[in-house]
Amino acid sequence: MTWVSDFAQGSGSQRELLGGKGAFLAEMTRMGLTVPPGFTVTTDACRHVMEHGEVPDGMWEEVDAALGRLEQMTGRSFGSGPEPLLLSVRSGAKFSMPGMMDTVLNLGMNDTVLEALIDWSGDEAFARDCQRRFQQMFAHVVLGADEAPFEEVLTDLRAKRQVTDDSELTAADLAEASERFGRVIAERGTIIPDDPRQQLRDAIEAVFRSWNNPRAMRYRRINRIPDSLGTAANIQMMVFGDLGEDSGTGVCFTRDPSTGEKVPFGDYLPRAQGEDVVAGIRNTLTLDDLAGINRAAHDELIAVMDRLEHHTTDMADIEFTIERGKLWILQTRAGKRTAAAAVKIAVDMVEEGLIDKSTAVQRVEPGQLEQLERPRIDRDHHKALASGVAASPGAAQGEAIFDCDRAVDARREGRTVILIRPETTPDDIHGMDAADGILTAQGGKTSHAAVVARGMGKPAVTGVGTMRVDGQGRRAVFGTLEIKEGDPITIDGTSGNVFAGLVPLVEPRPTPELIHLMDWADEIRTMGVRANADTPDDARRARAHGAEGIGLARTEHMFMGKRLEIVQSIILADDDEAREAGLLRLEAMQADDFEGLLREMDGLPVVVRLLDPPLHEFLPSMFELEHQMVQRARDGESTEDLEALEKKVSRWAEDNPMLGLRGVRLGLVVEHLYSMQVQAALSAVKRRLDAGGDPRLELMIPLVATTEELRRMREMIEAQILESGITIPIPVGTMIELPRAALVAGDLAGIAEFFSFGTNDLTQMTYGLSRDDAERLFLGHYLDEGILASNPFQTIDVDGVGRLIELAVKEGKAANPNLTLGVCGEHGGDPASIAFCRRAGLDYVSCSPPRVLVARLAAAQAELATVARDV
Amino acid sequence: MTWVSDFAQGSGSQRELLGGKGAFLAEMTRMGLTVPPGFTVTTDACRHVMEHGEVPDGMWEEVDAALGRLEQMTGRSFGSGPEPLLLSVRSGAKFSMPGMMDTVLNLGMNDTVLEALIDWSGDEAFARDCQRRFQQMFAHVVLGADEAPFEEVLTDLRAKRQVTDDSELTAADLAEASERFGRVIAERGTIIPDDPRQQLRDAIEAVFRSWNNPRAMRYRRINRIPDSLGTAANIQMMVFGDLGEDSGTGVCFTRDPSTGEKVPFGDYLPRAQGEDVVAGIRNTLTLDDLAGINRAAHDELIAVMDRLEHHTTDMADIEFTIERGKLWILQTRAGKRTAAAAVKIAVDMVEEGLIDKSTAVQRVEPGQLEQLERPRIDRDHHKALASGVAASPGAAQGEAIFDCDRAVDARREGRTVILIRPETTPDDIHGMDAADGILTAQGGKTSHAAVVARGMGKPAVTGVGTMRVDGQGRRAVFGTLEIKEGDPITIDGTSGNVFAGLVPLVEPRPTPELIHLMDWADEIRTMGVRANADTPDDARRARAHGAEGIGLARTEHMFMGKRLEIVQSIILADDDEAREAGLLRLEAMQADDFEGLLREMDGLPVVVRLLDPPLHEFLPSMFELEHQMVQRARDGESTEDLEALEKKVSRWAEDNPMLGLRGVRLGLVVEHLYSMQVQAALSAVKRRLDAGGDPRLELMIPLVATTEELRRMREMIEAQILESGITIPIPVGTMIELPRAALVAGDLAGIAEFFSFGTNDLTQMTYGLSRDDAERLFLGHYLDEGILASNPFQTIDVDGVGRLIELAVKEGKAANPNLTLGVCGEHGGDPASIAFCRRAGLDYVSCSPPRVLVARLAAAQAELATVARDV
Repeated sequence: MTWVSDFAQGSGSQRELLGGKGAFLAEMTRMGLTVPPGFTVTTDACRHVMEHGEVPDGMWEEVDAALGRLEQMTGRSFGSGPEPLLLSVRSGAKFSMPGMMDTVLNLGMNDTVLEALIDWSGDEAFARDCQRRFQQMFAHVVLGADEAPFEEVLTDLRAKRQVTDDSELTAADLAEASERFGRVIAERGTIIPDDPRQQLRDAIEAVFRSWNNPRAMRYRRINRIPDSLGTAANIQMMVFGDLGEDSGTGVCFTRDPSTGEKVPFGDYLPRAQGEDVVAGIRNTLTLDDLAGINRAAHDELIAVMDRLEHHTTDMADIEFTIERGKLWILQTRAGKRTAAAAVKIAVDMVEEGLIDKSTAVQRVEPGQLEQLERPRIDRDHHKALASGVAASPGAAQGEAIFDCDRAVDARREGRTVILIRPETTPDDIHGMDAADGILTAQGGKTSHAAVVARGMGKPAVTGVGTMRVDGQGRRAVFGTLEIKEGDPITIDGTSGNVFAGLVPLVEPRPTPELIHLMDWADEIRTMGVRANADTPDDARRARAHGAEGIGLARTEHMFMGKRLEIVQSIILADDDEAREAGLLRLEAMQADDFEGLLREMDGLPVVVRLLDPPLHEFLPSMFELEHQMVQRARDGESTEDLEALEKKVSRWAEDNPMLGLRGVRLGLVVEHLYSMQVQAALSAVKRRLDAGGDPRLELMIPLVATTEELRRMREMIEAQILESGITIPIPVGTMIELPRAALVAGDLAGIAEFFSFGTNDLTQMTYGLSRDDAERLFLGHYLDEGILASNPFQTIDVDGVGRLIELAVKEGKAANPNLTLGVCGEHGGDPASIAFCRRAGLDYVSCSPPRVLVARLAAAQAELATVARDV
Repeated sequence: MTWVSDFAQGSGSQRELLGGKGAFLAEMTRMGLTVPPGFTVTTDACRHVMEHGEVPDGMWEEVDAALGRLEQMTGRSFGSGPEPLLLSVRSGAKFSMPGMMDTVLNLGMNDTVLEALIDWSGDEAFARDCQRRFQQMFAHVVLGADEAPFEEVLTDLRAKRQVTDDSELTAADLAEASERFGRVIAERGTIIPDDPRQQLRDAIEAVFRSWNNPRAMRYRRINRIPDSLGTAANIQMMVFGDLGEDSGTGVCFTRDPSTGEKVPFGDYLPRAQGEDVVAGIRNTLTLDDLAGINRAAHDELIAVMDRLEHHTTDMADIEFTIERGKLWILQTRAGKRTAAAAVKIAVDMVEEGLIDKSTAVQRVEPGQLEQLERPRIDRDHHKALASGVAASPGAAQGEAIFDCDRAVDARREGRTVILIRPETTPDDIHGMDAADGILTAQGGKTSHAAVVARGMGKPAVTGVGTMRVDGQGRRAVFGTLEIKEGDPITIDGTSGNVFAGLVPLVEPRPTPELIHLMDWADEIRTMGVRANADTPDDARRARAHGAEGIGLARTEHMFMGKRLEIVQSIILADDDEAREAGLLRLEAMQADDFEGLLREMDGLPVVVRLLDPPLHEFLPSMFELEHQMVQRARDGESTEDLEALEKKVSRWAEDNPMLGLRGVRLGLVVEHLYSMQVQAALSAVKRRLDAGGDPRLELMIPLVATTEELRRMREMIEAQILESGITIPIPVGTMIELPRAALVAGDLAGIAEFFSFGTNDLTQMTYGLSRDDAERLFLGHYLDEGILASNPFQTIDVDGVGRLIELAVKEGKAANPNLTLGVCGEHGGDPASIAFCRRAGLDYVSCSPPRVLVARLAAAQAELATVARDV
């Protein structure tokens, strides 16, 4: 067979072909677990459809044959009684995308089958519920109908019957629902085919199509899953968790996905089917509760969990159904977990002998570690507004926002957002991505909101029963109190507490497991990790996180705040004397700055970058000045001083400041500016030496385009060093942040002791893309539309920017084998980019202090990947 | 000998080593012409001094030995009587730099020698004049003294004696001058060494130093002469043009350097020495006048001119002196000439059998041809204000400016300048470079102003006797009329006329010689030449100049003027309907635009570039709007409408528009914009086809960074072409103007039928340099300081931008051998860049219409250079 694979034939190693779900179903079948039988239509078939717009020749014949085998194995009949075979049709890609793609349950239903199902089950309400679920899902997934009209019918029926849960509706109610669903479907000019085989074909095609629905694409973008993989479709015999009181369905994890503790953990919902648990629409029971209801099934489940964890040597997430007392395993996958849980599970499993240290290091997604840096609530000192399920740990603070689109807007404007919803659905994924934290009224620990928030590493509190969310009114009501849109709010996903306002947060401390894991990572990695830090505080924090020096100290940040006035006086000085006086004052301050950095990083390198931004960044803009003049003019006041200032400011104004008078150009054009900074740095070194310290200053020239620029600067600096009498080495290097610098790297390497790739600017110049403008105006569109596969400012563009880096590394090293190579753009903290840096042969990455842990782990993973590649 | 070469030993082929002057002196000596004997200290020695800061070991010994040979050969003694040997010490680099470097005449002078010289010449005034000239030149050139105090002494003496010319001063006057000169020199703490050998050593070192004086550096920058060449120093026996009435000195050309006519041409000044002719301080005689004074010398000079022209097969510029009736040839070089003269001389010489066509094509500097495109005065219709020497042909108009620095400022602000000076000196070179035309009160056709203006290709009128220049008062007085600084003025360097105001100009017509030369160039070149043209008028003009198509039609220029209102309505539209309506109106207009271009270029390719600039370029800026609000607020008027407009404008505003939402990004983000333009272009093609024309439309996508951008655009365009029913080929290509596009050119080439290198943007991005900002703020400083050897926006940066182009060519061609390659940046009209394009393997260059002739000739020269290289 080419396009279809029975569960009994496949294995867990076939994730590419069968998708994760299909591969695990096959693997569990091989293990002899009680998996409802079925087969997988492969990702090859999906890719064929994506490419050619139609299913491959012979595929339907293979599906029919597999169906025949399934009928034979189960003794049930597809499309008829006495034991009708109903199917679940579920998507399943190589990487888990929970809730992102589409599922049709109870497929194979029509009036004939309904009658047979009533007879077989002896439960008309159950059978009719299956029918209405099938109609609803088929209409939505295959026919593309809105869900709202169906929900309205159910809401109407529940209201009539005065119940809150669909499971309380009677057979007559459900018959009416089914009839009204049929009308809704007919009114939009569609129809559900009566022929079960046609239903199956339509559903398989819909599953394939669902790979490219917007929310799946968005999810892939966020999680960096390639669009080209495609999904498989898994066709499986339905088992029913809603077939009486001794039936139910649940989701469990072999360890706690929030904390990583080694305790089985799960939600169980009696009399429920399929998505009812995840949707979080009814409150669930625990596994202990299940033990009380059905001890045998519970124990069997615990045993299955144990087998699966040992078999996969990873924490497993398992979906199960109990049909009339009998346990069925519907699905398993590696469980999504928080960063804390990932670290604890990886380290515990090494101690349990399940995995080795290298595997442990690879088990934690480096990006997740940033969560561990997040401040936490100081619990003792504040009174909670309400309390719910601690669904995803960590504290988050921001404006309450009740709508996903508005959350995205707020995010774009740089505001932090707590998204508040009654519950979340896959359609909310963009809002959740934009939010800093998620708060819902409904849902347990395995609800959509909880699973997705943990996956995203965002704090979440779910199931806050005392909260009523009024989306229309843009408010959440907590008894007599209310939080309106825009109000500040704090959530603590570790405790489940919700606070009004912004309560104070405290710094987290590393757990023993984290310290172990990072030690292992440090043993493995060969690439250094430095931090970008501009203040002694940042430097101290970075060093505490394991930074091995400062890769980038931006001196411009030292020009801000109270010093801005001095800086402005220098720029706007009418004569040399005034300018020199200002420079001297600034030099004294900068010497203190540098001394602080060198003290905190004693014995480790501190790369000081000379001033980079254009001078007008330190001045009010001409627009601002005109704006002030409007106000003055309205008040009838004089604008003379502002006009005079504007004239001076205009001297420095630029149309494209990014491409203007900045970096080394300032150093060459504005007299004494760079030499003042060098002097300050040298004074700091002297003071540290006098204090018995071990200062390791390195001086870096930004925005170099030509060898002549670097040569002149280097000569100036060397002369100043000579004059200072300092004899310890002070390496001088250059940023490589202009394409030209990369193209002439061989020449620059003769004058530089180190290169630091400034990948932010290098990306801007290589793409001809201003980051701020692009992100505001069109980068989102580009990513949504798939014109760009990832944001090149987050993950290094290997084909363009990366090629320049590789070229500069090769020619730089050839010209100067002692050249030190690093990266100091934001990419220095991005795991995929760090992997690239290792491949390109860089000596170190430098990233923001909260990303140091991320970088250390990513560097270790990059090392393992490189070793694996080279073997 | 290593560092010194006697004239009698060298030859004309040693320009690298001896400099142009030294090589020609050697060559003329070989030819047996009456050249005063001497020797050359080589450029090797100068380069050694530049590198090591001191003269090479053994050099002074070699100089002394050469001096001994010179004494022997001339029978004169250096430093003593009875026949004292005086020397001229002159610089001479590989490329002629008239007046740029320094000269010391009458060297070897002291009180003893003075007495001997009086005895030898029998003319005390002559001898004392030699002394004061020596003092003056040595003080200025070697000791670095200002010239002003010396001029003041002479002015004072002339006033006392009531004469206008130094030659009328008496021996007593000159003795006083000499004494006062000595005091001036002593007062600044310097002294002229008494020892003639020390004088010589100091002078040679000063000549070497003069290579790096600011005005020489500036001249090299303008004329693209490498700084590394160095100069030679030529030491030559003085002959005296001021030794009585039968002496004199002159400059002549073998053909007319203004028109190229084959008539000997020159200036002669009796009783004069050295620089008196070029300085333009006395009115000169013609060669015919010389014939009347000394027929034999005249005839000998004409014979020498003829021999030199045949020997060098080029128009020669000759300096000569007649000492007591005997003709001496002091120097020769290829004569500077106007573009018209260069063309005529080259073509005439082919017809005379002196040179072949390839040589003729190489004899004209392509950049000069732009001069021939310059409009001329419609002479019959205007009354001249004054009339002078037609020193450098062509008409120029602009503001009268009386100071070189202010001329530079005005130029930077984009104003056109006529520089008005009493006379010009080498110190004025930056002002002349900034000016569009030059007007002086003094000087003939070989004066500094005339020679330099012709070299620069700028119109000049010199020797306007009726004009009095009042530099302090910033005005020029013509009898009762005056021109004040800033007043408009027109000069006609072809007729020598000066007009008040801006008189109308007419288009020039190509001469038969030009047509010949361009035909020969076309036979030689293999690279195509297209024009950048946005209007049918431009297209017609370009075609008339020989453009073989349009390489770049910028559609944004079609959005300006009266259409701006429609464009704004589209951008600011509140709803889709309004936007669509605007787009439809614009589409109809664009169809007419394109039809016009295709009509003018019938049968030739027309590359239409879809919209490139950011949309806010079509809107008022937020600054402007605030500025208007200030006015309104002052007048107490409402600013509501402006605020509303500002809000809309702010939607599109960008911090770095160059790197923002432009080019293909607009096409992908702004619905219907690009498809409207494509539709308009297709309509135009249809109309041309219906009219029986041969439209050859090509569509070009700007600012492509990724293959996906190009793929989507190409798909959209192909769909539109298919729908249009047009079956003739319409190639679709991409600009390569972002570094990333060059880096992924191999992939782009699979989707593009042509690449057009947009070297303006490619240079901006590769250097991280905004052209406008850079030129306003620091590019001048970079060029003056030698940080950049040339402006990368004028001449392609081979190491950086060029490398990207070469890479894109190689990988693009490898992926798609049918790919057409062109360049459409401003570099397409720059000869050095055109040579690069040929080496890089491009198929065509596209340049502005006035540069088409330049490009055709440069392409032919590039071809000859490539063939020469490959042989």
